[in-house]
Amino acid sequence: MTSTKIGFIGLGIMGQPIALNLRKAGYPLWVYARRPEMMQPLTAVGATACTSPQAVAQQSEIIFIMVSDTADVEQVILGPDGIIHGATSGSLVIDMSSIAASATRTLATTLATVGLQMLDAPVSGGEKGAKEATLSIMVGGKVEQFERAWPLFQILGQNIVHVGNHGAGQIAKTCNQVLVSQTVVAVGEALLLAKAAGVNPAKVRQALLGGFANSKILEVHGQRMLEHDFQPGFKVKLHHKDIRIALQTAHELGLAIPGTALAAQNLNALMGSGHGELDSAAMVLVQERTSTVQLTEKG
Amino acid sequence: MTSTKIGFIGLGIMGQPIALNLRKAGYPLWVYARRPEMMQPLTAVGATACTSPQAVAQQSEIIFIMVSDTADVEQVILGPDGIIHGATSGSLVIDMSSIAASATRTLATTLATVGLQMLDAPVSGGEKGAKEATLSIMVGGKVEQFERAWPLFQILGQNIVHVGNHGAGQIAKTCNQVLVSQTVVAVGEALLLAKAAGVNPAKVRQALLGGFANSKILEVHGQRMLEHDFQPGFKVKLHHKDIRIALQTAHELGLAIPGTALAAQNLNALMGSGHGELDSAAMVLVQERTSTVQLTEKG
Repeated sequence: MTSTKIGFIGLGIMGQPIALNLRKAGYPLWVYARRPEMMQPLTAVGATACTSPQAVAQQSEIIFIMVSDTADVEQVILGPDGIIHGATSGSLVIDMSSIAASATRTLATTLATVGLQMLDAPVSGGEKGAKEATLSIMVGGKVEQFERAWPLFQILGQNIVHVGNHGAGQIAKTCNQVLVSQTVVAVGEALLLAKAAGVNPAKVRQALLGGFANSKILEVHGQRMLEHDFQPGFKVKLHHKDIRIALQTAHELGLAIPGTALAAQNLNALMGSGHGELDSAAMVLVQERTSTVQLTEKG
Repeated sequence: MTSTKIGFIGLGIMGQPIALNLRKAGYPLWVYARRPEMMQPLTAVGATACTSPQAVAQQSEIIFIMVSDTADVEQVILGPDGIIHGATSGSLVIDMSSIAASATRTLATTLATVGLQMLDAPVSGGEKGAKEATLSIMVGGKVEQFERAWPLFQILGQNIVHVGNHGAGQIAKTCNQVLVSQTVVAVGEALLLAKAAGVNPAKVRQALLGGFANSKILEVHGQRMLEHDFQPGFKVKLHHKDIRIALQTAHELGLAIPGTALAAQNLNALMGSGHGELDSAAMVLVQERTSTVQLTEKG
């Protein structure tokens, strides 16, 4: 199985450690990134640098994509030097980017017309999860293709779920961000309420970790908020993009998600004030603007 | 230490199992409940039934209160047959009810003028936590009184935190409800978005449990929502009361908590449609009213 020829397109903060884990597992690997210097850590361990997604696809049986947004994925697959012009019939495209489910479904249909398979496989767990191979992987597409990709997913993550048909992985990721964004808002409100009431918010966080208010966000982002430590983590600008996808999906479905819409405003405000590179725990900065207290103040 | 004479006032869904745990640990116990039949399970194991909070206080060194709302606590402590008219100087009142922090601070000041001590010690964990002695206990008041009560708290719960001075326990509980209410809304939006998109919400929940979207609420309330199993648990009418306290506290502090205010509307709508006795996971019923799908539909 380690003779399966793998392609990897997009070697950013997430793509690079994921591709490295595949290479370390022994797979022959062809890579492409828009910025050639991003390929260096991969070629240093034996991967072959290519000049286009098309060139990657010509060499590979399974081609991973990890880029930023819907338009990037469409360009990588359908563009003039895209995967669709290089891939051999029967090859499998695994898109790990977080994009709109509706776009994923259209791409899968287009690829099928030329005999190419597709899975959507967005992830949760951030750079840390990518490096440590502890990602959650949410997969949409045909079950046979999920089984084909299974040995590769096992190298990359821990909680790997075949959610459903094409787009189901993207919907799960969208649901993930619906939950995460609102929980970040809720943690910010709770900690600021404590602070404003003259109560130590670190003690409140500690008390709440043991009960029904417990969440991964209270644990991780709550601590970041208390320290104003907004080193990413997961950047505001990516969260902002994901929440646009959530609101777009709700718009398409005719579904009211007012809590998500409210949380989105904090991400908008952060982007508008130039904080896109911070971790999304920085949403508390927007909440502090309308408060008389800051979490880092002594008191 | 087991010779410390304990009083317990309020033997409802929470108070009764808590008082039973104290009695089972061997403490002599005097109890009072407005409905005399609620005292029966306690007298059956050797507790003494009293005719008023005053009578309980006359017998006890440490007097627990577990009633519903601020006015009830004020009545139990300050009313014509209240604790304040029976307690011996130096006695400790431990209020486990969830009430407004500002009211708790006033009560503690009033009790201090007649030589009585007070701790606010609201809990999280519900009926199950009370029965199994796994409650989170959030404590406000003087550290010496916290230490005095410590052996009793250890009988009743697991995560016991001295949050700060008078009212700090109530503020922590308020923060708990700020978090819980918004996380319930977020889980509802996420599961309904999946359903509306034609994706199995149970699979989405499963995929999300492993990552940053993970929370106790996704685990417990998420499952209840999928099954429309709204057996309490924690009743809507109590959550509704707690969220009123949160919004009242924010009003007093001059703090904006728009996410909590939004979540409160779902609890209002549930109360208005006669669903106060359901578990608060039923907030998803309000979300389903504005949706074309229900989580329990086949599809």
